[in-house]
Amino acid sequence: MDLHLDPSSGLPAYRQLAAALAGEIRAGRLAVGARLPSERDMAESLKLSRTTVTAAFRELESQGLVRGHVGRGTVVLAQDLAASPDGLPWRQRASRLATPPDTRGPRPAEGADLIAFADGWLHPELHPRAQIAEALAAAQQDMSGLLAPAPILGLPILREGLARMLGARGVEVRPDEILVTGGAQQGLNVVARALISPGDAVLVESPTWHGAIRAFRAAGAEAAGVPMDREGVDPDALEDALIRLRPKLVYLIPSFHCPTGRVMGLERRRQVLALCAKFRTPVLESDVYGDIAIDGPRPPSLKSLDTAGLVIHQGSASKTVGSSLRIGWLAAPPGAMELLAAAKANLDLSSPTLPQAVLAEFLQAGALSGHLARFTAALRRRRDAMAQALARDCPALTFQAPEGGLYIWARLPPQASAADLQARAAALGLSIRAGDVFFPEGGQDRHIRLCFAAPHADRIAEGVARLGRALDEAMGAGGPAASGAGYAAV
Amino acid sequence: MDLHLDPSSGLPAYRQLAAALAGEIRAGRLAVGARLPSERDMAESLKLSRTTVTAAFRELESQGLVRGHVGRGTVVLAQDLAASPDGLPWRQRASRLATPPDTRGPRPAEGADLIAFADGWLHPELHPRAQIAEALAAAQQDMSGLLAPAPILGLPILREGLARMLGARGVEVRPDEILVTGGAQQGLNVVARALISPGDAVLVESPTWHGAIRAFRAAGAEAAGVPMDREGVDPDALEDALIRLRPKLVYLIPSFHCPTGRVMGLERRRQVLALCAKFRTPVLESDVYGDIAIDGPRPPSLKSLDTAGLVIHQGSASKTVGSSLRIGWLAAPPGAMELLAAAKANLDLSSPTLPQAVLAEFLQAGALSGHLARFTAALRRRRDAMAQALARDCPALTFQAPEGGLYIWARLPPQASAADLQARAAALGLSIRAGDVFFPEGGQDRHIRLCFAAPHADRIAEGVARLGRALDEAMGAGGPAASGAGYAAV
Repeated sequence: MDLHLDPSSGLPAYRQLAAALAGEIRAGRLAVGARLPSERDMAESLKLSRTTVTAAFRELESQGLVRGHVGRGTVVLAQDLAASPDGLPWRQRASRLATPPDTRGPRPAEGADLIAFADGWLHPELHPRAQIAEALAAAQQDMSGLLAPAPILGLPILREGLARMLGARGVEVRPDEILVTGGAQQGLNVVARALISPGDAVLVESPTWHGAIRAFRAAGAEAAGVPMDREGVDPDALEDALIRLRPKLVYLIPSFHCPTGRVMGLERRRQVLALCAKFRTPVLESDVYGDIAIDGPRPPSLKSLDTAGLVIHQGSASKTVGSSLRIGWLAAPPGAMELLAAAKANLDLSSPTLPQAVLAEFLQAGALSGHLARFTAALRRRRDAMAQALARDCPALTFQAPEGGLYIWARLPPQASAADLQARAAALGLSIRAGDVFFPEGGQDRHIRLCFAAPHADRIAEGVARLGRALDEAMGAGGPAASGAGYAAV
Repeated sequence: MDLHLDPSSGLPAYRQLAAALAGEIRAGRLAVGARLPSERDMAESLKLSRTTVTAAFRELESQGLVRGHVGRGTVVLAQDLAASPDGLPWRQRASRLATPPDTRGPRPAEGADLIAFADGWLHPELHPRAQIAEALAAAQQDMSGLLAPAPILGLPILREGLARMLGARGVEVRPDEILVTGGAQQGLNVVARALISPGDAVLVESPTWHGAIRAFRAAGAEAAGVPMDREGVDPDALEDALIRLRPKLVYLIPSFHCPTGRVMGLERRRQVLALCAKFRTPVLESDVYGDIAIDGPRPPSLKSLDTAGLVIHQGSASKTVGSSLRIGWLAAPPGAMELLAAAKANLDLSSPTLPQAVLAEFLQAGALSGHLARFTAALRRRRDAMAQALARDCPALTFQAPEGGLYIWARLPPQASAADLQARAAALGLSIRAGDVFFPEGGQDRHIRLCFAAPHADRIAEGVARLGRALDEAMGAGGPAASGAGYAAV
């Protein structure tokens, strides 16, 4: 071993010695299991103090390179830890309930090179920008209020506004029956944390929102899919699953369902509630899209039809007012509120005050109904533009234009693969969402979800034209596009 | 059975019939297991259409009152569901991992009748109110930015500001090695969700922050306490627990520990890191209080000493700038970031933009260091006032005034109970925190935690005087105060 220390380097001697020894270990000149010279021998041979050598050995130990054994001296360790620039092999340390990492990084913003149909975000022109700016200005009148942490359930003035809003939609709840959450996604986790134990079953529509599948799985649940027909979840299949799986929860998106856009009929809603009442099973209703009624009146929520106190109702400002606020809410039977509040406190104590104050002022100013009228009118034009372009440029796709929500759900011809089409579209500057993530049982490769709210309105036709070219390629190719190209499926 | 329907009531006949039958069931005149007359018989005897009776029976079924059986007719069900105004017995449905419900409701605000020592919130006078208002005004210059959802990792300008701030504290990380979380509490859940599977062990100091115990337990972990001495966690006990329990994670609060206020010594920090490196065990370091150095320089973080890539570092603006922003962060080795980002996306997709923009502007304006200087000076006066008052009015308490952080941790004399003292203090208009919640193993009733940041500075002496009276009562009483009085221990 040939160690050079440089007294003029300015580094403490123990650090220099540790670095020199670490270099020997990393280069393999000190093999795993090799014993370092004793501290005394090394101090003598290098003309260093014993303290310096002791400190150097401890430094190596803290780097996981060596380990001191009483009576055996200091031994070089296996290098799995030290050899990696990251230290630990983190992926091997992942929870077995962890979601597969999402390596997309920041969500792709639409730009010159990309038309975005993939994700359920609103194009900036759909935001009620002026009214939000006014609400923000109003909220600032009370800086003390903005600096005070909100209660666990959420800012009282927001819950009062939400209770009024829900009342106008047939959902009669008091402000203390509402819990403000970090978007609907956190609401899913609040309910899961309150009600789900590892090994429990949760019934979901198949397909359904993939974030729900992931939230339930992270709580240790089996998310079991129940098939749908045009009217929503199939009642016979639901009853069978309620009997077979004894689920702790049924999660449904009855209005403008994601990803299919379907609306559960009124009679079906009553049937489904009766089944869940019969089996004493709570229902988590996602009504995130209920206000986005493009063609007709808003469908009645399950909560407004619930006479048995079964339904936890979920809403969100993300798909209507703006997703940057990250505000959702749960409206629940009184007996469920303490469980939900405890879960929320456990997750993040409470939501930030400022966005809640902005949404509260927005509601108080009566800005919602006017915004929704403009918003759904703009979405009607977008949906029609996408549907017409699809009929023209993608005749091989099968779809039904939805009466509300943000998505067209389209079925591919038998010879095409959705994953392949997604990759080909990405290569042409179009993001779409292959449908397999929405199926709890997986293994589906025949659908794509297209969001008509995310792109600029003037680029919908061009996006669909790109999709048509990608589809032509996919159908002509007979094989998948080069894998790894473009936008990753998540 | 005597059913009266009123044709002039305006209610549909099926609803009237359902309500009448429900009344019979609820009153017990139709017993559990009783069979209703057949639909045909009832239609004939009441001179109603068969459709009306069918609809009424379905309504009852949706209320969980009856159930139709093919071949057996319609049977009255047990009333656990329908008899409760809440519908389901929600508590029985709680996850077995759920935190016990926190029934405190909104946190008690200090007021004429209450002096607040219990929780770790900042009194409004400690907020950098003017600088936050300026930061908010600056953030509003970019309404488009405020309306755009933030990436999963957090707003880039905030992560750049945090990377600079951490760099100045010896933690060299890039902005893409930082994840913005909803306060430190969400950060605990992000790490738990990324790394913990049900049944895993997590080592924590005993005592420790109870929100961490709860977050780890909610992920299915066993939170095992490791004893502390004056210098922090005991290294021999830590090594023993690393060997015995093979934990997936070690959670530590090395600087101004909550609840004890202790600071882990430099040598101890190196020992602890070396042990965790030896056993290849990740460390989650909470540095939430590190900036609140009242008497001397800021202690070096474990992350700044970590050469093995073991440490996930956690910080928060909640205990310094303001907790209403709900902004914390994790700074982690690159290999851990994808797991953490996936967990964050699963929990709530991303944090709201507006509070992140405000904190980013606050950091960019260079407001933090001046604020911390004023803040720690104010805390020094508060701590000294509390310590002096305790020495004078509560001589039976044993405590050491901390060199930083927000709390005094005091030990009661053997004859007193902390739960009893908390109840007696509440009756005198003082909130304190009995210490048992901080011990993962429970069963400790000898400590209280007193926050000197939460009350008005001028009321600290009065609060301690009330504590002294409560303590005199508790020591003289020889028995606990009337249970249920005042502020619940959570």
